[in-house]
Amino acid sequence: MPHETALSEIETFLGDRLVRSKSDRALHGQNEAWFPEMLPDAVAYPETTAEVARIVGICARHGCPVTPWGAGSSLEGHALAAGGGISLDMGRMNRILAIRAEDMQAVVQPGVTRRALARELRATGLMFPVDPGADASLGGMAATRASGTTTVRYGTMRDNVMGLEVVLADGRVIRTGSGARKSAAGYDLTGLFVGSEGTLGIITELTLRLHGQPEAVTAATCAFDDFEAAVATVIATIQMGIRMARIEFVDETTAAIFNRVNGTALPEKPHLMVEFHGSARSAEEDAERFGEVVADHGGAGFAWAGTAEERNRLWRMRHDAYRACLASRPGCIGLVTDICVPISKLAEAVRETRADIAASGLPGPIVGHVGDGNFHAALLIERGNAAELATAKALAHRMAERALRLGGTITGEHGIGLGKKDLMALEHGAGWALMAQIKRALDPAGILNPGKVVETKA
Amino acid sequence: MPHETALSEIETFLGDRLVRSKSDRALHGQNEAWFPEMLPDAVAYPETTAEVARIVGICARHGCPVTPWGAGSSLEGHALAAGGGISLDMGRMNRILAIRAEDMQAVVQPGVTRRALARELRATGLMFPVDPGADASLGGMAATRASGTTTVRYGTMRDNVMGLEVVLADGRVIRTGSGARKSAAGYDLTGLFVGSEGTLGIITELTLRLHGQPEAVTAATCAFDDFEAAVATVIATIQMGIRMARIEFVDETTAAIFNRVNGTALPEKPHLMVEFHGSARSAEEDAERFGEVVADHGGAGFAWAGTAEERNRLWRMRHDAYRACLASRPGCIGLVTDICVPISKLAEAVRETRADIAASGLPGPIVGHVGDGNFHAALLIERGNAAELATAKALAHRMAERALRLGGTITGEHGIGLGKKDLMALEHGAGWALMAQIKRALDPAGILNPGKVVETKA
Repeated sequence: MPHETALSEIETFLGDRLVRSKSDRALHGQNEAWFPEMLPDAVAYPETTAEVARIVGICARHGCPVTPWGAGSSLEGHALAAGGGISLDMGRMNRILAIRAEDMQAVVQPGVTRRALARELRATGLMFPVDPGADASLGGMAATRASGTTTVRYGTMRDNVMGLEVVLADGRVIRTGSGARKSAAGYDLTGLFVGSEGTLGIITELTLRLHGQPEAVTAATCAFDDFEAAVATVIATIQMGIRMARIEFVDETTAAIFNRVNGTALPEKPHLMVEFHGSARSAEEDAERFGEVVADHGGAGFAWAGTAEERNRLWRMRHDAYRACLASRPGCIGLVTDICVPISKLAEAVRETRADIAASGLPGPIVGHVGDGNFHAALLIERGNAAELATAKALAHRMAERALRLGGTITGEHGIGLGKKDLMALEHGAGWALMAQIKRALDPAGILNPGKVVETKA
Repeated sequence: MPHETALSEIETFLGDRLVRSKSDRALHGQNEAWFPEMLPDAVAYPETTAEVARIVGICARHGCPVTPWGAGSSLEGHALAAGGGISLDMGRMNRILAIRAEDMQAVVQPGVTRRALARELRATGLMFPVDPGADASLGGMAATRASGTTTVRYGTMRDNVMGLEVVLADGRVIRTGSGARKSAAGYDLTGLFVGSEGTLGIITELTLRLHGQPEAVTAATCAFDDFEAAVATVIATIQMGIRMARIEFVDETTAAIFNRVNGTALPEKPHLMVEFHGSARSAEEDAERFGEVVADHGGAGFAWAGTAEERNRLWRMRHDAYRACLASRPGCIGLVTDICVPISKLAEAVRETRADIAASGLPGPIVGHVGDGNFHAALLIERGNAAELATAKALAHRMAERALRLGGTITGEHGIGLGKKDLMALEHGAGWALMAQIKRALDPAGILNPGKVVETKA
């Protein structure tokens, strides 16, 4: 077996928490997207930072790759052990270590999922807002700089991770950040690790910024005759300074899928789904002003989700959109790609993408966190159909190129993983080489999630 | 002359914009704080990114230090050419290159000052909120991760710089970030350069996030019998979710100095100065709710600054606090130090610091951006009095240690510069060595602002 020396050495202290069974390896060789199975040589289940440090130290000595695994919900193959070696399953490091209500902070292990933290916070009056839809692990969300429906108001993981404990490639353990809300004390190491996709270090603890649960929440859906009117509504809403907590675009294809899969009776038109947070008075005011903007743009079918239950149903439907899309074409897999553009270019980006999807012949519903200029196309391809996969890949590539042409980025939130490395030079130019310099400085042996984000070979 | 080869080579294309006169060198050897004069060997005034790249490339070949100079308003000696070589004055790169109102972005050269940008934005309905008080250059503000009075609402430079153009230590030019509001495309290089104090690269262009000018602004001052009541008011305000745009603490010593220097008639007690931004309705609601919190904590002397002119007078007074403090002890210089702690520890940090200042015998007014847990002590020392300087340094050192003991950071916004490098290991442990690894990877010859932030010698 490859890397046998490293594995045996790790087994001496991890015991049966180092697993070489085919089934466990297969479970960690899967992904939520279109990437083929990639089996690690073994799966390790550490329970402490010290164990992670020891594992990484051994791997560094023997040149054995280590790829961290959170909840496996990545859409770009981040957690696949593309170079073999160890899949480091952080699922047993799933304790909430502290909730500091006065300072609005939580300290968690990386295996805690978003929903587990939400449950724990429910009674505190606080919340952790970053919401990528999937019940991702918070370690994975930090590693991929996740964002989602509430980012327009509360920011991404970049904005909501205050500090980290990280195991470096040589087994050293560092702490970044502090309990203070800001700092000017040296390089922003927290920011460097957030979004580094496990290639610079393994996150073993996170200090998160919490927010107050809003006193009042209002949510609504509304339909538009065309997507341009929906997008124009978003832009006008932003320009008027109306503070949205969520503003989601759902195209007519997705609305039709919702009706079919969820039994709703939405008009089969482009929709916006919005939510406002504030005091009773301010949330009402925001909703009123938004209603006026919608009316100005010919929006109709305005439906308020008045109760918490109705709102939950609304957002569950939005979150399950990917699964509903997959269900709409039996036997398919999804190539879901995301781009993010300056808000002034959003209509153009969506228009060109719609035309491209229509020309491809693939089903490709579009949804998006449009308040950020971010949208996704879920390209539904027949499993095993190489021609459709090639078509989808080419389309995703053109979307990314389009984002760059419009001054945006090849991914707003899904990250690079295995899917977008070939676009990095296009986006960053010499900056991509700089990222590789940083990678080589921090992980000279190249053992941490090899093959992702950067190209370290000359 | 040291570095003569490099200087002569630069002179061939910079001509009389490479200056070796004593007066110009002296001007760039000064600082706003207590650091002794440190003369560069020459001052360079580049006008384009290409010139900066050429200068840095030459310096790299000849091992000549390059220390960027913005407006010289740093309080920790960042811009002093501690290692000699070239002071790179960015003041002629002071053009606003684009204001993209629809995307709420501005593209500026690094020598544009905060107030110059504010003037340009006045008619657009947009604003750039980061406000450190001094009319700093935006390049310098990014390089030092500046923040200030409005950070409690709008964030620091970390949150408001979307992208950069940077000249690397070998003369290569990279662009970081994009025009999109978020990205998950690789390492956060923007975040790495923001706060790196010119030690990793020279910022030659910035894309800034703008915000809408608030529809309504209300501001007020109120006095408390003791600082504990003022701090408790801040904590309660945050916990109630009242959205402050500014919330500043000013101690009784500072209030007395304001009266003396500005002719105001403030009660000589601890004060809070606050500002609320929003729609007419929401700003009024916030102000009302804040008024209730103040009353609950025994606050009095509540004075609203109703007009824009009254507000400007209020904030000018706050911004000029440092100068007023200096004026209050003729012939003195200031050692102004800042720390930042979790909000729950703010009262403890202020209490211990007040006692320490009282015991030192030095005048030491305290002001602070208390909504962030950040406060400053301006220790006023007689020019040339070594004993007083030593006392002030020891006191600042204890403040930093106190911040760390309370879970905070040695500097919330003033940065490291020359003043706080000896505290970096204490705050970051092995993380400080990691910063040095990054520095060595990006600037192997150590020419960029040498002697600051990290220790690269083994």
